[in-house]
Order: sequence, then C-alpha cells, then structure tokens
Amino acid sequence: MLNHVIESQQFTPEILLELFKRADELRVKTDLCLIGKILATLFYEPSTRTRLSFDSAMHKLGGRVISTENAKEFSSAIKGESLVDTIRIVSSYCDCIVLRHYDTGAALEASKVSKVPIINAGDGKGQHPTQALLDVYTIYREFERLENLKIAMVGDLASGRTVRSLCYLLGKFPGNKIIFVSPENLEMSDDIKEYLKKKNVEFVEETVLDKVLPDINIVYMTRIQKERISLQDYKKAKGKYVINQLNFQLIKKNSRIMHPLPHVEEIDLPIDVEQIDKRVAYFRQAENGLYIRMALLDLILNKENCFEESY
Amino acid sequence: MLNHVIESQQFTPEILLELFKRADELRVKTDLCLIGKILATLFYEPSTRTRLSFDSAMHKLGGRVISTENAKEFSSAIKGESLVDTIRIVSSYCDCIVLRHYDTGAALEASKVSKVPIINAGDGKGQHPTQALLDVYTIYREFERLENLKIAMVGDLASGRTVRSLCYLLGKFPGNKIIFVSPENLEMSDDIKEYLKKKNVEFVEETVLDKVLPDINIVYMTRIQKERISLQDYKKAKGKYVINQLNFQLIKKNSRIMHPLPHVEEIDLPIDVEQIDKRVAYFRQAENGLYIRMALLDLILNKENCFEESY
Amino acid sequence: MLNHVIESQQFTPEILLELFKRADELRVKTDLCLIGKILATLFYEPSTRTRLSFDSAMHKLGGRVISTENAKEFSSAIKGESLVDTIRIVSSYCDCIVLRHYDTGAALEASKVSKVPIINAGDGKGQHPTQALLDVYTIYREFERLENLKIAMVGDLASGRTVRSLCYLLGKFPGNKIIFVSPENLEMSDDIKEYLKKKNVEFVEETVLDKVLPDINIVYMTRIQKERISLQDYKKAKGKYVINQLNFQLIKKNSRIMHPLPHVEEIDLPIDVEQIDKRVAYFRQAENGLYIRMALLDLILNKENCFEESY
Repeated sequence: MLNHVIESQQFTPEILLELFKRADELRVKTDLCLIGKILATLFYEPSTRTRLSFDSAMHKLGGRVISTENAKEFSSAIKGESLVDTIRIVSSYCDCIVLRHYDTGAALEASKVSKVPIINAGDGKGQHPTQALLDVYTIYREFERLENLKIAMVGDLASGRTVRSLCYLLGKFPGNKIIFVSPENLEMSDDIKEYLKKKNVEFVEETVLDKVLPDINIVYMTRIQKERISLQDYKKAKGKYVINQLNFQLIKKNSRIMHPLPHVEEIDLPIDVEQIDKRVAYFRQAENGLYIRMALLDLILNKENCFEESY
Repeated sequence: MLNHVIESQQFTPEILLELFKRADELRVKTDLCLIGKILATLFYEPSTRTRLSFDSAMHKLGGRVISTENAKEFSSAIKGESLVDTIRIVSSYCDCIVLRHYDTGAALEASKVSKVPIINAGDGKGQHPTQALLDVYTIYREFERLENLKIAMVGDLASGRTVRSLCYLLGKFPGNKIIFVSPENLEMSDDIKEYLKKKNVEFVEETVLDKVLPDINIVYMTRIQKERISLQDYKKAKGKYVINQLNFQLIKKNSRIMHPLPHVEEIDLPIDVEQIDKRVAYFRQAENGLYIRMALLDLILNKENCFEESY
Repeated sequence: MLNHVIESQQFTPEILLELFKRADELRVKTDLCLIGKILATLFYEPSTRTRLSFDSAMHKLGGRVISTENAKEFSSAIKGESLVDTIRIVSSYCDCIVLRHYDTGAALEASKVSKVPIINAGDGKGQHPTQALLDVYTIYREFERLENLKIAMVGDLASGRTVRSLCYLLGKFPGNKIIFVSPENLEMSDDIKEYLKKKNVEFVEETVLDKVLPDINIVYMTRIQKERISLQDYKKAKGKYVINQLNFQLIKKNSRIMHPLPHVEEIDLPIDVEQIDKRVAYFRQAENGLYIRMALLDLILNKENCFEESY
C-alpha cells in the first residue's frame, strides 16, 4: 500500500512523535536520504509558500524536484484533461506527488490512480494535512506537549482548512479545550463538533475575542478567505476579530499567537513586536513547515506502509 | 555540427534502434551520464506533460534544469524580443534547449543561432519529434517490430503534429499500411500523402471508424484541437470519432489503442478498463516518453554528430 | 552583517576586481563551491533572462534552486500578504534570495527582515546592481580597463535602471567621460548628474546620435520602456535613436555597442553582422552575466562581511 497523505486524521500520536523527532534531527544535521528521488509539486492553485517549502525540503534531503506553479492555466487541463489522467501520467515521471487542487476530494481521487504516494497540499475547502502537521509540531516545540492546552480558533472557521485539520489532531490528545471565535455565518461546521464530542474534547463558542484572550495558551488566528465566501459574508466578517497592540496586552507572556499565514488585517502588530516578542509564534510556525515536511518526505519515501496502523 | 532535433524525418532506422536499446537500459538501470550538464526547458505554449517528462529525464541522468513554464507571457517576449535573440542568450546559460513554440518553424530558426543543441518540443502545426519517438518506441515495445503493421490514424489529421511525424517514421519501415479516418475539412494534408507515395507506403482514407477497427494492429486516436481550428470545423468534428465500450469490442485482443494524450471525449472507456485491458496502451505510451527522452538527451549531449548520416 | 546586494554603489573598485577575477576563473574551471546551498529566485515581475542566468549560475556551482516565475499573480501576494512577510518566511527556506519587484525600494525593505542575503534583481525604477556588474565586467573584458573611456548612453535614460547603476560604477574610476543622448522628457535625472559632478566625472548631453558615434569607445543603447512611461512620451521617443547599417559605419572598429537587452527597433542590424562583427558586444555582455553572477553568489555565500568596507 502506498503512503498517501490525504487527511490529518491518519496521523496517530505515535507517527506524530516520530515525525517531530525526525524534524528536530533534520533541523540540525543534514541527511541526504532522498538522493536519486524525484518529487513533483503539482499546483492547480497558487501557493508559493507551500510549494517553495516542499521544493526546499526535497532539495535539502538530496532529492530533485519537477514543478508546475499553476497547473490550472498552464497545462493540459485547459485542453480538457481530467485530473486522474494527469496523475496517472505524472506519477510515472516521479517518486512522489505533492498536489494542491481547488476541488475538495481531489487528493483522494488522485491517490486511487497514482503509482506513487500523493501528498495532499490543500484540496479546496477540504484538508491541508501538512499544515496541520506543522501546526501541532509548532505547539509541541513551544509547549513541549500536545495535551491539556486551551486553544482559541479565531476567524473564518467555516472555510478554514487549517482549523478543521487541527481539531482532528488535537482530538487525539487528552485534556485539550477549544474555544471557537467566529463571525456569524462562518462558524465551525457540525461534522467537526460531532468529532470533538465523540473524542470527549471540550469546546465552546464565543463571540468576544478580548474575553477569551487572557485565559488561553494559544490563540490561532485565521484570515477571512474572501476567495471562498460571499461578498456579504466577507464584509460582515472583515476586521471583526483582530489582534492589535491593545488586546495583545491581554495575552499572557507564556501564551502564543499562531497563524497559518498569510495574515492581513486580522493581525495588526508593529514589525518590531513581531520580530522580538516570544508570543508571536507564526514565523517560527512557518519555518517549522520546512522541517516537518523534510521528516514527512523521508518517512513516506523510505518506510513501507507507514500509515498501516492508522486506518 | 550540433545535434539539433528538429523533425522526425532525421531519425534513421539505425538511430531509432540505438535509442530504443538505450531507453530499455535506462528503464532498469540508473546512469548519471549528464552530471554537470544543464538543460533549459523553454515553453512558449503550456505543456505540463512534455515539460515535466524532459525535466524528470534530465534529473534522472544527474543533470540540472532551468525552466520557464510560459515564456510567452512571462519573459522578455512581451517587451518585443525576438525568439532568435532569446535563444542566443539562453543558449549561453545551458548545454541544451528544449523549445516549445506556437510558430511553425520556430525550432529550425532557433537552431540557426543557438550555441547548443535545440530539441523541438512542438512548433505550432509543425512537428513534435520526441512525441513521434515515443510513439514508435511504444509500437516497438508492444509489437517487437516497426514493419508490416496496419495503423489507423483517427481524428483531426490536419492540425495533428503527432500523426504527421508518425507517418514520416513509419515510412522508413517496409510493409506498413495506414488508414486515415478524419472528419471533413480535417483530412491529412497532401504533403504527407506525397511522402508516403514516394516511400511506397500503402494508405487509404476511410470515414467509418467501426469498419476499420476489426482489421488494424493499432488505432491511433487524436483529439480535435479546438485551439487550432475554426469553431465551425470543431462543431462538425467533435464527438464524430469515439472509442467507447461498444466499438471497443471490435478491436482484436492483441491490437492496441494509442493516443498522444490528453484525451477528452474521443476515448470514452471506464477507468477500470483503462487500468486493466492490455489494448489500452496510451498510459504506457506516455511513460515511454520519459525513457526515450532520457536516451535522446544522453545521445545528443554525449555523442558527436549523431545525426550526420541522416541529412 | 548579511551580504545584501541592494545597489551598485556598494561595489568598491577592489570588490569589482575580485569579482572579475573570480568570474574569469569560473568561466574556464568548474567549482562546486555551493553544494548544499539553496537559492530562491523570487520574481514579482517577469524576467526570464535574469532568472534563468541566476538559476544556471547556482546549478553550475553545485547549489539548488527554488523559484517562482510570477510571484505577483501566483502567490500569497494576491491574498494580501506584504512583501516583508513573504521574505521573512521564504528566507527560512533558503540561503539566499534573488528578488525582482515592481516597487522601488523593495529590495532594501526585504533586506531589513530577511535572515539570508538579498540580491536586488531589479526594483521598479530603482536599481539592478547585477546588471551593472555584468556591464562593467563586459567593459573590463573588452577594453582591459575601466578608466579613461568615453561612453555614450542612449535612449530612455529617465526610466533606465541600467544606465543609472552604470553611472554609479563608472564614477568610481578616473578619466571617464559620459555622453547622455536621450529624447525630450526622458533625460538622465538630476541625482545622477549631481553624483557625477561630486565624483568629478565629465558628462555632456547631446541630442544627435550620429555626431557622437565617431568619437566614443562605447555606445550603450537602451530600449524605450513603454511599460514605464506615458504613451505620449513613448510615441515621441520610439525610433528616435537607432543603430542601423548606416550609422554603424560611424563607429570605430575597436569601439563597442552594448545593450542590456532585450533590444527592439533601437538596434536594427542584420543577423550576420550581429554574429560576426566584434563591435557588437551585447550578446557577449549577456553571457558575462552568467559568470559574474556565479562569482557574486560564491562571494556572498562563502565570505563574511564582504561589503563591510563599502558602507
């Protein structure tokens, strides 16, 4: 069975800890464990950050990369080719495919015909499991644990892939409490709430951010995704939840602000605060993406059936 | 003299067999014969499949790649630079250029000023010789011969580069018979028919696909190229010639369906048939592109005057 | 302090000569001095030539490249991310960033937050210091000196980054004389004239190109940059200053025509003259870009505080 990475649920606590350990190693010591391997980064939606971090991860491990920045416009897709046909063919040119696609479920479809492991790098409103990995890896590095944490998730929780995936992973560890803070119409959807109930994860919904901030370990901010919601919803939501110099003071010194980035007006802190204050964790979080992706590429390309236990 | 690859005619039967042998070797055994070499893939028209297979081929042989996905929009072309100037300059940055361009004759023009070998990866309605190479390599692997074959070529034969190039190569081997099946206005052009007559290759023109299918070794399907013909011609031609579950039964068990891909509605078979039935050769055909391009890159970068005999 | 390359002024005569010597070495002898290093080429404006030459330079030195062709359209920039945030993140994925951006001052802004050296590959109407480097390197190779030269700069001197940067560098060497030849409204701006006065560099302004040509060592032609000026200015300027077969005869045999390329109608010489006549230096100039960029990458990635003296 191929080591496809489709959804964050498939990572067991054991695999997570193995990946964190490997990422910590690769951060300090070069290992050319992917020499002779080729990674294809196939992006139907632009995402410079995600693509460049995968490309860099592969290079650092000695592998090679073939890449397309915008498969939607620049490929045989415009001639009407189906995704599964593209995957069939590209999977005979490489050892692993990182796929970003605008359709929910695209990665799963791709995994059914691919000859090599598929890594889902975002499928529409679906999932983005390596973002979830770097999020929990960041929490692990900042707090040295993944349990007994209070986490506020703030912003567009309806379209946000990252918060959905993060809920799945946090649900695997005991004692966590989640506080959802979202504008009207952009609340966290019921399937996630059902999942959390099943996993006995405590959660509440709040509407006033400043009431929440003094009491949490992590505030996970997200962008209002203009491109995925109606203009009306966007106007209502824009600027509603912001971390600025005023309410920043409400956050405890050993708490952390996370964000999947890019951030726009929902974080409004001066550059020097962002550079110096330990509470600003989101740039460390982005950097962690490089190391956890290195660990993941090593795992799925060098270990057989690594997700066997998880399904 | 540089080893430019401009048109399929330049491949003699001897070079073809040398390339097939090398491709078969490289399929099973790594050879880093292009370490220290740089390939430029310069695409003025998008073609993910062709570009990625060249990029992958170069990497597998230890070489490096510099690349542009859409030179038309993203380069000095929009500032008015001529192709020959671009080629002059880019050819001083690399050891070989793969060129895809929308103008017929572009590769030949480029070869006149380039300091390094040019590989034509498609020039408008002109040629696409490495597609022709992978086509005959596929025929060779499926039938263990390139002679005494009956081949139906179906679809838009007027704009189809691949069928033109394939005619040139099949004309070099004895005993082949070609059946052209095309919609009105999209017939194979006279220059190819003249060539085949000169080479004593038997050919006929048919209009009913199902009459042809029971009797051929290969049915080579092509897409109606909407982007190269008038809307009126497209409407008349679209959907006229299709392989579907019904007429698929007319094809003998040891015959083969080929297609340069991407395919759209002209092949309408269920995924599981495409996955399992040996008659479906087009995904193997696409994969062969990788190995024959590896063989070709090795040949033109490591052997002097390799096409001397052919001109 | 990081070895950022922001403006041509920062290159002292000593560094220039060190770079020229290294470029001459690397031209003839491979040196894999950047193995294990990763270069990011981040282009917010298209520039195939500049990007491909940096990519090739990095590969030739054994390094790896991560790249984006059009960061403006294809990145988180469209989601509203600021340049400094992008730089913060991308700089944690690589060892050096080559940045092309449409805003003047972008490279300087980037250098303030980057964890790795920034190389300015053009910032709007600002500078393009590696173009200036290859220009002076070309002059050095063609004339074996950078002093006592008469140089005509012709065309759109107002928007031309290259001529501005070249003035800064020529001002560091004694005995040079500059002749500015430009259409009305596109004259060299005052800040450069002030700089030249301060450096005791003689300069004059002329309007008739043919009067100038017999007397110079170098005529540095530039394109009228339609994309940076008003349509009215463009119409007045277009075709005003041209080197063609007639006035080409006015240029002395040991003089040189340079051009940052791409050129359009401002150079109108037959291909065979461009190929053979020694006075046509602009294709050698473009090739020099590869070697001087190799030397520069080696310098800033392998030597500490290399620009310490210059500021």
